[in-house]
Amino acid sequence: MRPGTALAGLLHLTSARQDKIDALLANEITAIALEKIQLSDGSMPIRYALAQIGGQMVPQIAARLLQNEAGGKGILIGGTVGVPPAEIIIIGAGVVGNCAAHGFLGLGAHVSVLDVSIDALQRIHNRHPSVVTMISNPVTIARACSYADVVVGAVLVPGERPPVLVTREIVRGMKPRSVIMDVSIDEGGCVETSRPTTHDYPTFIEEGVIHYCVPNMPGVVARTATHAYINAAFPFILQMANEGVETAIAKNPSIEHGVDTHQGNLVHLSRVVSIEMED
Amino acid sequence: MRPGTALAGLLHLTSARQDKIDALLANEITAIALEKIQLSDGSMPIRYALAQIGGQMVPQIAARLLQNEAGGKGILIGGTVGVPPAEIIIIGAGVVGNCAAHGFLGLGAHVSVLDVSIDALQRIHNRHPSVVTMISNPVTIARACSYADVVVGAVLVPGERPPVLVTREIVRGMKPRSVIMDVSIDEGGCVETSRPTTHDYPTFIEEGVIHYCVPNMPGVVARTATHAYINAAFPFILQMANEGVETAIAKNPSIEHGVDTHQGNLVHLSRVVSIEMED
Amino acid sequence: MRPGTALAGLLHLTSARQDKIDALLANEITAIALEKIQLSDGSMPIRYALAQIGGQMVPQIAARLLQNEAGGKGILIGGTVGVPPAEIIIIGAGVVGNCAAHGFLGLGAHVSVLDVSIDALQRIHNRHPSVVTMISNPVTIARACSYADVVVGAVLVPGERPPVLVTREIVRGMKPRSVIMDVSIDEGGCVETSRPTTHDYPTFIEEGVIHYCVPNMPGVVARTATHAYINAAFPFILQMANEGVETAIAKNPSIEHGVDTHQGNLVHLSRVVSIEMED
Amino acid sequence: MRPGTALAGLLHLTSARQDKIDALLANEITAIALEKIQLSDGSMPIRYALAQIGGQMVPQIAARLLQNEAGGKGILIGGTVGVPPAEIIIIGAGVVGNCAAHGFLGLGAHVSVLDVSIDALQRIHNRHPSVVTMISNPVTIARACSYADVVVGAVLVPGERPPVLVTREIVRGMKPRSVIMDVSIDEGGCVETSRPTTHDYPTFIEEGVIHYCVPNMPGVVARTATHAYINAAFPFILQMANEGVETAIAKNPSIEHGVDTHQGNLVHLSRVVSIEMED
Amino acid sequence: MRPGTALAGLLHLTSARQDKIDALLANEITAIALEKIQLSDGSMPIRYALAQIGGQMVPQIAARLLQNEAGGKGILIGGTVGVPPAEIIIIGAGVVGNCAAHGFLGLGAHVSVLDVSIDALQRIHNRHPSVVTMISNPVTIARACSYADVVVGAVLVPGERPPVLVTREIVRGMKPRSVIMDVSIDEGGCVETSRPTTHDYPTFIEEGVIHYCVPNMPGVVARTATHAYINAAFPFILQMANEGVETAIAKNPSIEHGVDTHQGNLVHLSRVVSIEMED
Amino acid sequence: MRPGTALAGLLHLTSARQDKIDALLANEITAIALEKIQLSDGSMPIRYALAQIGGQMVPQIAARLLQNEAGGKGILIGGTVGVPPAEIIIIGAGVVGNCAAHGFLGLGAHVSVLDVSIDALQRIHNRHPSVVTMISNPVTIARACSYADVVVGAVLVPGERPPVLVTREIVRGMKPRSVIMDVSIDEGGCVETSRPTTHDYPTFIEEGVIHYCVPNMPGVVARTATHAYINAAFPFILQMANEGVETAIAKNPSIEHGVDTHQGNLVHLSRVVSIEMED
Repeated sequence: MRPGTALAGLLHLTSARQDKIDALLANEITAIALEKIQLSDGSMPIRYALAQIGGQMVPQIAARLLQNEAGGKGILIGGTVGVPPAEIIIIGAGVVGNCAAHGFLGLGAHVSVLDVSIDALQRIHNRHPSVVTMISNPVTIARACSYADVVVGAVLVPGERPPVLVTREIVRGMKPRSVIMDVSIDEGGCVETSRPTTHDYPTFIEEGVIHYCVPNMPGVVARTATHAYINAAFPFILQMANEGVETAIAKNPSIEHGVDTHQGNLVHLSRVVSIEMED
Repeated sequence: MRPGTALAGLLHLTSARQDKIDALLANEITAIALEKIQLSDGSMPIRYALAQIGGQMVPQIAARLLQNEAGGKGILIGGTVGVPPAEIIIIGAGVVGNCAAHGFLGLGAHVSVLDVSIDALQRIHNRHPSVVTMISNPVTIARACSYADVVVGAVLVPGERPPVLVTREIVRGMKPRSVIMDVSIDEGGCVETSRPTTHDYPTFIEEGVIHYCVPNMPGVVARTATHAYINAAFPFILQMANEGVETAIAKNPSIEHGVDTHQGNLVHLSRVVSIEMED
Repeated sequence: MRPGTALAGLLHLTSARQDKIDALLANEITAIALEKIQLSDGSMPIRYALAQIGGQMVPQIAARLLQNEAGGKGILIGGTVGVPPAEIIIIGAGVVGNCAAHGFLGLGAHVSVLDVSIDALQRIHNRHPSVVTMISNPVTIARACSYADVVVGAVLVPGERPPVLVTREIVRGMKPRSVIMDVSIDEGGCVETSRPTTHDYPTFIEEGVIHYCVPNMPGVVARTATHAYINAAFPFILQMANEGVETAIAKNPSIEHGVDTHQGNLVHLSRVVSIEMED
Repeated sequence: MRPGTALAGLLHLTSARQDKIDALLANEITAIALEKIQLSDGSMPIRYALAQIGGQMVPQIAARLLQNEAGGKGILIGGTVGVPPAEIIIIGAGVVGNCAAHGFLGLGAHVSVLDVSIDALQRIHNRHPSVVTMISNPVTIARACSYADVVVGAVLVPGERPPVLVTREIVRGMKPRSVIMDVSIDEGGCVETSRPTTHDYPTFIEEGVIHYCVPNMPGVVARTATHAYINAAFPFILQMANEGVETAIAKNPSIEHGVDTHQGNLVHLSRVVSIEMED
Repeated sequence: MRPGTALAGLLHLTSARQDKIDALLANEITAIALEKIQLSDGSMPIRYALAQIGGQMVPQIAARLLQNEAGGKGILIGGTVGVPPAEIIIIGAGVVGNCAAHGFLGLGAHVSVLDVSIDALQRIHNRHPSVVTMISNPVTIARACSYADVVVGAVLVPGERPPVLVTREIVRGMKPRSVIMDVSIDEGGCVETSRPTTHDYPTFIEEGVIHYCVPNMPGVVARTATHAYINAAFPFILQMANEGVETAIAKNPSIEHGVDTHQGNLVHLSRVVSIEMED
Repeated sequence: MRPGTALAGLLHLTSARQDKIDALLANEITAIALEKIQLSDGSMPIRYALAQIGGQMVPQIAARLLQNEAGGKGILIGGTVGVPPAEIIIIGAGVVGNCAAHGFLGLGAHVSVLDVSIDALQRIHNRHPSVVTMISNPVTIARACSYADVVVGAVLVPGERPPVLVTREIVRGMKPRSVIMDVSIDEGGCVETSRPTTHDYPTFIEEGVIHYCVPNMPGVVARTATHAYINAAFPFILQMANEGVETAIAKNPSIEHGVDTHQGNLVHLSRVVSIEMED
């Protein structure tokens, strides 16, 4: 890339990608991480769109991980007549948790959602009255995980690595061949035993529990994800194209939030932010 | 097995399994195919239970086949906000078609069901008013397949190999990387280009379309399927255990329908039967 | 009553009411138990109407029995945001079980239904997909009762006293202050520890569990029950009024099924019959 | 209690509890009424949680008051096939009214809600499209009450005794044995003929109408209510425990709103506030 | 038409069309009224399809008749926030009544259905629990009509002119500018004041009430109706085409039911039959 | 009207009504356009109420325009069993679009909604998950219109004439006898080929497409509209009545927004504003 040019995209620049950061700085590139664009009310439209897709994908991936040919328990998410459905525990009632719950219910599962915020639980309760809601704390998490067929880690804390809510001891107490999907793995994960995996080798077994910890889950529904991300980013891309990147950054604080590197200077690295469910 | 003993189970004895038939005959074994047990109203409870599970599995398998890491189009069944959902075409409105439609709707798809029977369409319409119903004929099938993301072949004709409803020419007219799931492959398939695959190598590409043609789909949710099948078969197993197999066959015509071989004689091979949706 | 006259009503004549039977016989009264009127397809329209009301009442009575001022656990059927709902176990998937399940779901409970008939479970599953269905046997009943907040006995067997499905040992394994409602108490009850109570003193405690065993539950919603029963009985009452009782009995086998005493002779006592859910 | 200590709980200190206030002042106790904790957006999380439970309880209590053994009309909330459901009139579309409407619909009632705020009606309409909404004024209230089986008074006005919306004359125009539940009785009531009752003697009859006016309705589902209230209060209790009460009051204006007495001084008595339905 | 040929179509030959009958007889035409084809279980597939469309059309026509520019009351079927919905009374719970109720509910109306059959009411209640069901008799009809905004006459009695259920006196008691739609007008009507109208002049006013009595309502959605009717008739048309009309009549009793004239002889005129809702 | 008096009502004063403006000015009348009253959050309660009714009316008018006796295609909005439903395209996801979508779904249509705002699409998606949502741009509009049976123009841009989104070329690409309803015609319309029509002559044909462009649609449900508009305006009318118009204008900025002419001076003409869907 020619020095001095601008770059906009899903950058996900964290300290783990230092080489890429160095290159951007060396070439004095202005890099705008679209996923970090933030409106004045704190919402992040591009991130929201991708989190929504991630949440929608959780049920179909969980369904596969429960099939025996994939090493799973050999059960159907929704059970069938005379056979109870799978027990799903979702930790985190943000957009990922809401979308995952919606899909699991559509497949007939029994779904419980835990969160520290009673307001977040209220919102998911209003939307899906048949979901069981519980205040999240070490006791409720341990108890819920002990009977879960699938545990979904969907926790994000603004500006921080997510806390480790599911400890190794809790994992040890889970049923054999049950499934953990740590969707917060992009930001470090909220399960003690989780470590990033890939779409090629998505799972590993630890303490007898199947772990799925693939960052960037929307990557496997690339066509849908691309449309969704462009839809959300389009107004900002248009402004940058029409007015020039420098002007757009100067005039629109939402875009300014996305600037990672600016003419050779490091502005700020990607931080973790929570994605609340919009009403 | 000791000659003269009786055997009950999911036998699926067709002419393709001649060696197994020969062994049963040679050892004068009385073999009862539980899946062929048939009540006086023509319904087949064990078969029905397994067909229901097969239908429930279709959406989760289709979802995976649309992921790009599995070679698919990279789309999400339900689309997302601003991106339309997948178009699902189900040919056959029996129990497989009903259960598949139910799950696809739960994931947010747009679902159309074709059948030659207006009564079968009426039943699925009453249950799921948002499903589009169409009379099945070569014209409607060709038109529907042309815009489908997923085509599900769920057609069974009593006592016969299912007709080839989706011809190679129709397949040729489908969108690249769209998906065909031929659930009727157990009985020979209703798609000209389909041939049996396995859970290990479940798909192949023909005319640019991904084909999934695994017989015995419930096999990958073995635990749920076993419970369901035992639930349905239990009254008959109990009668055979309590009264002896010969007495049970003599007294209960439902069980008699399941007899494949009887004391060294071939009674009748497995036939194809339609599984209507019960109300 | 003048000897030789006819009497039609909800008679519920069982051997426990021998004095009433004697009086009918001594006075040569023709007594028609409307609840025993039976159509040629085996259905019993008046009984069905009353069973439906009984089933509808179960949730509101259970709700009260869980209130602490009535001696209960002090929980709300539907829980609330952050607090899980009550666990309801219904044994029997006939009309009582279906109507009870419908109301419990409306109040936000988590409902499981057990039955020996996979067909009956299929019907309730089609109607209420979020109900968990299980094949009923001693193992599943014991397990389900162990975590129940409310157990509803809704079992009827044609022509027999209902079997004792919930043994004293199972009751002993239930949670303290949980509730048993034995709706089959009219026919003898399906819970070992149950005995008839009255609307004035509806409950007793046995093995630490609150028992509600009031026969004739619709009696406390007398106005609704009377309308429902007259609605169902009206065609038969009309025929008796128009044609005379003797002619109506002779011409209409449905009415003939209801005759308890006929001109001084005992015809047949009330028998227990199952009330299947109509589609 | 040792002078100078702090006290936090559901205090409900009104002028009617002057003796308790005097004791708090004499002992220089800092008393924090958790139910008065108020966030910067005006919402009151603990009060909201309890109001929600109160609203959820209304339908099950109304159902019982309509039973004839409790002196009621002998009707079933949902009616039954061939018999129309009960007519429910709810005055006030806040959280109590919303939760009550939700439960009544679940039991099959026909529900109308009145409120002076078109916005509040819009919210309940969006959530429950089958609820009839009406602007509340003396004419609509009188007309609606005249055909009601149950009238629910669920009106709160910020900082004031609720207005008397249902006058004695309106009560006189109601059907015999119909039911009034004045949920706003905690703050003085919105029905002219209502006066506080107790869980032991919950009802009285005035103008031929059954009145239920028990303050603190959640008291009879104590276990659920306690969990809900602790869930909502926990973040504030934690802050007081971690930082000390004085610091917490000083730093957190939400907690400051809850202070009734502070080191021997009366801060402010409990006021009535409206609890809007959160989206 | 050449004498001796056969004719199949929607003939609706009644005594009012004597000239057409004479022509068929004179020309020795075999005329098959497709709408009279009847299966061995008594169901009539072509008639059913058209009755379903008729029922679906009722709500949209009623909506227009309530608009003031069409002479109506100027109200919206569903009301709006703060304004109650229209009151719809449907007399007859067959397929017309069911489909009409479904659409009215979709537009937000409050719907009551009356029928003499408790079984028919049970079916509509199972399908649409929010519909009020009432046993039909002169008292309930008069009371319901007195507060109706729209009355739908959807009554058919097998083999007979429908009874006059809504008398002139009942019509007189209806609200000014309310609407009567007599869908049974094809068979003579069930409203005393109704007389056939046309699509060009569809309404008249009698006793201050707007009457809509257009026979053959599906005629105005001709494209949908034609597809539906061909779908239902296709198997029979195919058989006649393949085997010849005479053979088809001889072999298939369902087709034989449709024969109006046969080689110069009058077989039987069209009779009225009830169209039950299929499950 | 006496000079110097005040006038409040639905004025809709635009430059097209210059004569009326002149009269108001000449007589020094203070004219308050209630539909322009605007709260501090930008919402406009009276306009919102009328827009909601307009949206609710769209489906019933579209249904009629598809009937062949009104010149339409002869199709039923919801199709029927075996016949697909109509394709509805709604451009604009504000209150008109939401209410229209709700009613179309109730009649069984397949509905797609386009909007430039992903947030607006998210809101309609949360409310109606079965609606297809698409980002609106010339490409998506043209494609959607090409297969539509009904196109609804429901676009408003704050303070401006709505943009022409459906060009003549797009109209030319629509199916013969399909329908365009330009609900934004009050503000100038968003369809190039549209021009205002009247309730007496509501439609014209251009490019083979039926156009319905009647301003003030709620005028044909005058009774419902009047109630709704008074409900929304009542608090403001009350204030003007109690305090006098001048004082009310001075004290309440919401009312001030509605002033068109003030004591002989023109204040501001009606502007176009967007009516967002409230949650």
